[in-house]
Amino acid sequence: MTFPLVKRMTAEALGTGFLVATVVGSGIMADKLAGGNTALALLGNTLPTGAILIVLILTLAPISGAHFNPAVSLVESFMGGLPWRELAPYVTAQIAGGCLGTLTAHGMFDLALIQASATARTGVAQWFAEFVATFGLLMTIHAVVRFRIGAIPFAVGLYITAAYWFTSSTSFANPAVTIARGLTATFAGIAPASVPAFILAQLLGGLTAMALTKWLLDSNPRSPSP
Amino acid sequence: MTFPLVKRMTAEALGTGFLVATVVGSGIMADKLAGGNTALALLGNTLPTGAILIVLILTLAPISGAHFNPAVSLVESFMGGLPWRELAPYVTAQIAGGCLGTLTAHGMFDLALIQASATARTGVAQWFAEFVATFGLLMTIHAVVRFRIGAIPFAVGLYITAAYWFTSSTSFANPAVTIARGLTATFAGIAPASVPAFILAQLLGGLTAMALTKWLLDSNPRSPSP
Amino acid sequence: MTFPLVKRMTAEALGTGFLVATVVGSGIMADKLAGGNTALALLGNTLPTGAILIVLILTLAPISGAHFNPAVSLVESFMGGLPWRELAPYVTAQIAGGCLGTLTAHGMFDLALIQASATARTGVAQWFAEFVATFGLLMTIHAVVRFRIGAIPFAVGLYITAAYWFTSSTSFANPAVTIARGLTATFAGIAPASVPAFILAQLLGGLTAMALTKWLLDSNPRSPSP
Amino acid sequence: MTFPLVKRMTAEALGTGFLVATVVGSGIMADKLAGGNTALALLGNTLPTGAILIVLILTLAPISGAHFNPAVSLVESFMGGLPWRELAPYVTAQIAGGCLGTLTAHGMFDLALIQASATARTGVAQWFAEFVATFGLLMTIHAVVRFRIGAIPFAVGLYITAAYWFTSSTSFANPAVTIARGLTATFAGIAPASVPAFILAQLLGGLTAMALTKWLLDSNPRSPSP
Repeated sequence: MTFPLVKRMTAEALGTGFLVATVVGSGIMADKLAGGNTALALLGNTLPTGAILIVLILTLAPISGAHFNPAVSLVESFMGGLPWRELAPYVTAQIAGGCLGTLTAHGMFDLALIQASATARTGVAQWFAEFVATFGLLMTIHAVVRFRIGAIPFAVGLYITAAYWFTSSTSFANPAVTIARGLTATFAGIAPASVPAFILAQLLGGLTAMALTKWLLDSNPRSPSP
Repeated sequence: MTFPLVKRMTAEALGTGFLVATVVGSGIMADKLAGGNTALALLGNTLPTGAILIVLILTLAPISGAHFNPAVSLVESFMGGLPWRELAPYVTAQIAGGCLGTLTAHGMFDLALIQASATARTGVAQWFAEFVATFGLLMTIHAVVRFRIGAIPFAVGLYITAAYWFTSSTSFANPAVTIARGLTATFAGIAPASVPAFILAQLLGGLTAMALTKWLLDSNPRSPSP
Repeated sequence: MTFPLVKRMTAEALGTGFLVATVVGSGIMADKLAGGNTALALLGNTLPTGAILIVLILTLAPISGAHFNPAVSLVESFMGGLPWRELAPYVTAQIAGGCLGTLTAHGMFDLALIQASATARTGVAQWFAEFVATFGLLMTIHAVVRFRIGAIPFAVGLYITAAYWFTSSTSFANPAVTIARGLTATFAGIAPASVPAFILAQLLGGLTAMALTKWLLDSNPRSPSP
Repeated sequence: MTFPLVKRMTAEALGTGFLVATVVGSGIMADKLAGGNTALALLGNTLPTGAILIVLILTLAPISGAHFNPAVSLVESFMGGLPWRELAPYVTAQIAGGCLGTLTAHGMFDLALIQASATARTGVAQWFAEFVATFGLLMTIHAVVRFRIGAIPFAVGLYITAAYWFTSSTSFANPAVTIARGLTATFAGIAPASVPAFILAQLLGGLTAMALTKWLLDSNPRSPSP
């Protein structure tokens, strides 16, 4: 069952939009209610994000593959899963959908629709964290797609649930989400100046994972075996 | 396997009743224990609600479809999944069951059985939130029923888990639950005057999702393809 | 694949033991760490209990059916799933295993092995809560066993996760666990004098669920259909 | 599909590394944000650990079996699931990967890469807790592998989620993870002097579970039946 590109782009935009609306919206809600307890705020940000990822992949993967993430689409193009000519439309839909997601969250919480974040997220440690987070995400996706594709929604949702906490950056691991979070001054925001380095680290992490898992998953019997 | 209408109505009433008893009861418990920390109270309200939804859909979907929600039943009737003549019985059972659920929660916590909520929940932002929440719920249901019906309990339970946090209204997304929550003055309550606008926004969100997903899920090869 | 009774009794004792050790142990841990915040303590008690139930049913159901609960075994005997002559051995194993579970928790936390609880849990509201909790548990078990037996571990674990919060009694819903929790003076304890009424309410709830779901699940085409 | 040993060792190192990076990293994050509330810190440590275990087993089990744990590998060798000559390579990969995981966590949080923990974790109660925790883990693995292997990722992840709370030691239950946590002075650390007794208790618990479940799971009809 193949869907025309316009529907697949709509699915990518809807999915990235709901994902960002959840990240930003639950960040606003959790931050408002937590009364300064940041661990509780991050918990109220983590659980909805992990849950909605599972839901959105269950809902939209059969249409578009449910990438919602330019790093995933780029690697898919390298691996032959997405024609190169469809990469730009996919990424465009993801970024546009993500930005609409931020606006939707602002609308639901009665905030100014467009905002500029002042939350600097920078430094070698956080870039390394984004590298590791995206490396793990792409490793997970590749192996689980190969071995047990029906578990992909749960694998991705639970991976991000964990990565919110095991990285110093709270694991953006997604260039479209990173750009969209540049448009909010709330809990989940990132200063626009911090965005490019995050994206670079994410792409490097994703491509490194691609190289490693390509080798790792190749069970060719002619591989050197001890 | 088809069940007679009286059993399906019983299943809808039982399911909506347990759902509302969980929303209201866990709200009372969480609010009482949280000592003023609203993030913790919402967490103690969210986890039980998401969990019981999964359980109730696993338990009752084979009997009645496990709508527990007039917006879902209405859309089902539009889509051909529920005969129009059964819509009123379904909605009646959901509302009656939901109200009994509120009373059950009050009984379990030794509170006055009938109460009037004074919690105004109103304004364009919250109405927009209810629109978005119900839109997402119906989009999820339609696509997952089509593609992977066995995952429906998990998709719906996790969707509501997320929506409690990403919306400013904590996502009622259900006219029967909204009415039933109008009967409690506790944490989960909603002032009766706020109910009609919530229901209107929910129905609009549900019908919009129906229109969009009908187009989106139609993989007819004659659809215009780029 | 049928296992001899001694192995099934061992499985029931191991399962009820681990269940109680988790309820009591996580109660001790959560209470100690929560610094007086009871919502957080209940959360730290709920998540492990729900999780271990899923694990134990996955692990032991193929051997003994994973009742871990005299109310479940009693209803199974009524329904023909457990020979009446095996009911007493099952219940004995459950109670013995549960009490060993309390002792194990005490041992792991360096507390006196045998304790007397002074936590009175009594009154019509809590008895009604135990009735409702056990009613819902048995309704869930019957319907899910019938329709989708592979989901039973998740349905039961998530049901108890919800029931900890939607009932005023935190949902014991299990006579063997109730007796075993009578042996601890920690967070999860119950005064021995409160035990009998809890058990009575649980058995009534379970038997009422049996009667209702027997009618509800009977899809006999000769049933009166509107 | 069999993978050469070097790839299986890589998988064991990657898996144990991500597991430890999550345990240590989320410990740092949770501890930093929780503002002294240890229950919240443990919650922020538990959820990521349980989630990443599910992810890593889904991702890597088809390659190496996803032991990530010398106690599991040892028991596998006893049971015939791992050739004895591959035990040392597996354990080496697990310990090396685990230590790299600690360093990775330190790098992501901008801390000194190598640290010495001063957190003594000792005494009969904690050793007993490690015995019980590892006993339960191995019992779970054996039975679920036998009866429902596809549920193993969820069974193991949820087991550890529970065991963090029902044991006084927060359930290390893994010699490689114990050694790796000896290299951090953060929340998840353990003083090197406390490590050997923990490992001894873990191995005893694992071997005891092996003996018990071997008898329990043997449904040979010639077994003595009452």
